Amino acid sequence: MTTASIPTWPDSAPQLIAVATGRAPADTVIQGGKWVNVHTREILDNHDIAIIAGRIACVVPDAAHCIGPDTQIIQANGRHMIPGLCDGHMHIESGMLTPAEFARAVIPHGTTSMFTDPHEIANVLGLAGVRMMHDEALMQPVNIFTQMPSCAPSAPGMETTGFEISPEDVAEAMSWPGIIGLGEMMNFPGVSNADPKMLAEIAATQHAGKTVGGHYASPDLGPAFAGYVAGGPADDHEGTCEADAIARMRQGMRSMIRLGSAWYDVETQITAITEKGLDPRNMILCTDDCHSGTLVNDGHMNRVVRHAINCGCDPLIALQMATINTATHFGLEREIGSLTPGRCADVILTSDLTTLPIETVIARGQIVAENGVCLVDCPHYNWPDTARQTVNMGKTLAAEDFTIPAPKGANAVRANVIGVVENQAPTKALQFELPVTEGRVQATGEVCQIALVERHRATGSVTNAFVSGFGYDGPMAMASTVAHDSHHMIVVGTDGAHMAMAANRLNEVGGGIVIFRDGVELALVELPIAGLMSDRLATEVAAKADQMMQAMRDCGCTLNNAYMQHSLLALVVIPELRISDLGLVDVRSFEFIPVIEPLS
Amino acid sequence: MTTASIPTWPDSAPQLIAVATGRAPADTVIQGGKWVNVHTREILDNHDIAIIAGRIACVVPDAAHCIGPDTQIIQANGRHMIPGLCDGHMHIESGMLTPAEFARAVIPHGTTSMFTDPHEIANVLGLAGVRMMHDEALMQPVNIFTQMPSCAPSAPGMETTGFEISPEDVAEAMSWPGIIGLGEMMNFPGVSNADPKMLAEIAATQHAGKTVGGHYASPDLGPAFAGYVAGGPADDHEGTCEADAIARMRQGMRSMIRLGSAWYDVETQITAITEKGLDPRNMILCTDDCHSGTLVNDGHMNRVVRHAINCGCDPLIALQMATINTATHFGLEREIGSLTPGRCADVILTSDLTTLPIETVIARGQIVAENGVCLVDCPHYNWPDTARQTVNMGKTLAAEDFTIPAPKGANAVRANVIGVVENQAPTKALQFELPVTEGRVQATGEVCQIALVERHRATGSVTNAFVSGFGYDGPMAMASTVAHDSHHMIVVGTDGAHMAMAANRLNEVGGGIVIFRDGVELALVELPIAGLMSDRLATEVAAKADQMMQAMRDCGCTLNNAYMQHSLLALVVIPELRISDLGLVDVRSFEFIPVIEPLS
Repeated sequence: MTTASIPTWPDSAPQLIAVATGRAPADTVIQGGKWVNVHTREILDNHDIAIIAGRIACVVPDAAHCIGPDTQIIQANGRHMIPGLCDGHMHIESGMLTPAEFARAVIPHGTTSMFTDPHEIANVLGLAGVRMMHDEALMQPVNIFTQMPSCAPSAPGMETTGFEISPEDVAEAMSWPGIIGLGEMMNFPGVSNADPKMLAEIAATQHAGKTVGGHYASPDLGPAFAGYVAGGPADDHEGTCEADAIARMRQGMRSMIRLGSAWYDVETQITAITEKGLDPRNMILCTDDCHSGTLVNDGHMNRVVRHAINCGCDPLIALQMATINTATHFGLEREIGSLTPGRCADVILTSDLTTLPIETVIARGQIVAENGVCLVDCPHYNWPDTARQTVNMGKTLAAEDFTIPAPKGANAVRANVIGVVENQAPTKALQFELPVTEGRVQATGEVCQIALVERHRATGSVTNAFVSGFGYDGPMAMASTVAHDSHHMIVVGTDGAHMAMAANRLNEVGGGIVIFRDGVELALVELPIAGLMSDRLATEVAAKADQMMQAMRDCGCTLNNAYMQHSLLALVVIPELRISDLGLVDVRSFEFIPVIEPLS
Repeated sequence: MTTASIPTWPDSAPQLIAVATGRAPADTVIQGGKWVNVHTREILDNHDIAIIAGRIACVVPDAAHCIGPDTQIIQANGRHMIPGLCDGHMHIESGMLTPAEFARAVIPHGTTSMFTDPHEIANVLGLAGVRMMHDEALMQPVNIFTQMPSCAPSAPGMETTGFEISPEDVAEAMSWPGIIGLGEMMNFPGVSNADPKMLAEIAATQHAGKTVGGHYASPDLGPAFAGYVAGGPADDHEGTCEADAIARMRQGMRSMIRLGSAWYDVETQITAITEKGLDPRNMILCTDDCHSGTLVNDGHMNRVVRHAINCGCDPLIALQMATINTATHFGLEREIGSLTPGRCADVILTSDLTTLPIETVIARGQIVAENGVCLVDCPHYNWPDTARQTVNMGKTLAAEDFTIPAPKGANAVRANVIGVVENQAPTKALQFELPVTEGRVQATGEVCQIALVERHRATGSVTNAFVSGFGYDGPMAMASTVAHDSHHMIVVGTDGAHMAMAANRLNEVGGGIVIFRDGVELALVELPIAGLMSDRLATEVAAKADQMMQAMRDCGCTLNNAYMQHSLLALVVIPELRISDLGLVDVRSFEFIPVIEPLS
């Protein structure tokens, strides 16, 4: 494994001391900036930062004594020098980009440290996939720390994943160099019920002295929450209101508040600080999930910090929430998160602390971006065939595979239908009366078909059901191998032949998203790595994703976040009705229900 | 090694969850208190704390669901529930008490966690002595974390210690269960000069993921300070003014501010918070050194917190500085420092947050003190003979051993004299004209004799010199085996016969402090363990120390902190003039100088 890491503080200490005391020249000196000090929460005019071996040697009013003939001088010209931004919890796969291309996309936005949970690839490739993400992460010119995924499958017994994660996997991963802790412990009922497997994963993490990520996606702040906290998760990013944030911080967790492409949980929770005046040290900003389009058009952690400031947060406190608070949470406060001696020289120059233009980004002492342009190489891992050939349907599908037979002699049936709800992640469990033709149930009106095509083990299994709310008309189908969390293939369509066409196409290209209408391919986003990610540039992926979303609209879909709605239809941990490779799941009761209600 | 520790959080998690969710009864419930929340900096009325297996299961408005028939109920009756207090840096030996008796003395004051640097015993017994302190520490009903001493000898080449501490010793100690980090790195010039031995000790600590304690005892905040910070120490407790505290925090260190028996550095530094308004998270309260008398009469960390509040600090911020700030600094924020689930159930009940009466102290879920009375056993380590027989002078001394011969034919000489200065640790390098009788230099007037008697290796060596400022008159001598930092024996007296008497007496009892006048023993404090500590009760030791200080006054000494002045006369790292087993040391230049100036 090749890594891009710099020598440790103790390994660099002789050099750092030599520069700080003026006995040796710095590699680089940033001159004349406003030192944004996130330890004391101060702005100190006219300071210099001397850098050697990728780390900060000293921050002083005048670093002239650290300058030699070969020292690179960067003029801050009175701009603010702020620490590189940290994303406290996120999933790289959500950008449909590899770690390398994700890094390339966010570096110009000033993100220099990410805490990433490769939960999606864990479902497809298991521990081996996590290791690939981890290894590519360590090759990058910025810090990508890996949280070991905790919950694959997300809903044991309700779905079949490509691979499962065991407590032994977690224990093994804790010894890898880039593992910072356990990824979000989504099985919150399991923790509150003291599920031995979940507690074993948490224990392996705690024994390794690492941080246990939380995910408590429930408004219940009673005994179930108390049980979850007692189980050990150290943070949570699923809060949506002020009371959620306050409850987590009071209980000694860190409250991560997120602004993702589709998450808007900062404004509703930051009032715990801005209005209630609580100690802000336990609040952390994060994105959780960002699409490539957001990265290309809007930004990354700079967008989140800016938004927090727009919500009324003091800019210095907002910056603390994206720097030192995050670093402290993960036990890294002497490694990243502030502009002080010994730490990685991750520095942003910005001329305004409120609008936060990211003008120059320095990571590990090197200029990595200027004025929005990434200036550094982000090396690619040599993804093996096992990671590039993950769509294994086992056979070529035909229209017949998407047939839903009616009970003998029925002219119409009562069908259980997944009801997509605009702007909400939960679906509704609906029922529709559907007609029968030649023994087959017909999707009509606002109802169309959905199929879960098994793609991990080549079983040839296709689970068929119905979905409403997309508004598709005319013969079409859309297929995606991004299908949270088990990431089989979700096909939604109005016509069996088109559904087969879409599924076969993804089988051919090795995964991604495709839309066919009237026999024509309208859009294709190729995601060859695990069926989840592209190793192309974010701009290319974002452009293709735009085409894909335009194609959805062209097929009659008017939903906001239409693609996300599609990709979440197999997420059998969010109510009310979902599809898995094992059948139609009523997530309210965690029971399978029939697609066609028995005739009464 | 027996330890009194409780099961870890992961080992207790099933029980904690069961209690928090109401499926199993708590061992103990504290009912109806004001929850002082050091995470959010809030006081929340009417909360209950449920405890199981020594840890907090939940803190909720009503823990009725956690109460079973055998649950012990503690009525808070509306009092404040605050976390047990933490002392961020201290030396147990300064109390002249063993860890067990120190713990017994401070438990009623609400101290439940101490970060202790057994630097003194390291000089006498080396790594083995540190291990003994460490082992007795782990036997106690409260948390005593050990910082591995870094600097024995304190001044290499200037003195001979009983044992030395090497980087290999430090690396070995990092694997011991009770080691929390490196003790104060006092060799600050060594760090600024990149001394390989000092950097190796720091590196061993950093590689082990532990905290490097600092000690930067200089007002110079220029490049020497920058070099020290770049070397890696993570905190410092030697600041004396506001600028010191601010400089340390800005540079990413934690500023420890101390109120010891003779240190008064809180009032002058806490203004960084109370007046300058800096983020208080990086300030920590500590004692550094407390005499047994202070513990018996005034308190311990409760005294420091109360003092911080009297200096104008918000009580909640002052409490944070003695709880969560300390815990976070040492990577223990999920173990101690707040009243939240999973943490050790270390709780103080107090009816007033400003005057801070310590009414009930609970440690690891057990009531350990009430109304100033310790209710718990503090077990003694079985100190071996090697620790109890450390005064090895090698011979019985006589008056002649304290003779200072004059150059042949001289009637008078010019002598270099250690000048004790009232209320200051630094001495003055003075010169006096002294008479000669029968070829011997005579101490007269305000000058008396000082001798450094070698006591570690039985060399029989006695180093003689002169000291002024004690005000002794009449034939007397005082001897002490507490003789920072190498802890040989310091004898100060007006008469050689009395000096021999005092030295021989300490050799006989195995160490301590003794005063003779007119041939009579006025006071004796026996310190049989390493010549530094007693294993008797703090009240007994304090009473004997009082007698000793009274005896000093009876001999004519009017100095404040007279005993401390005596015990620091061999501290060859504090200017200007000190004595060591190797001679008279000019600490300004780190050179030996003659006692008698050569005739010119």
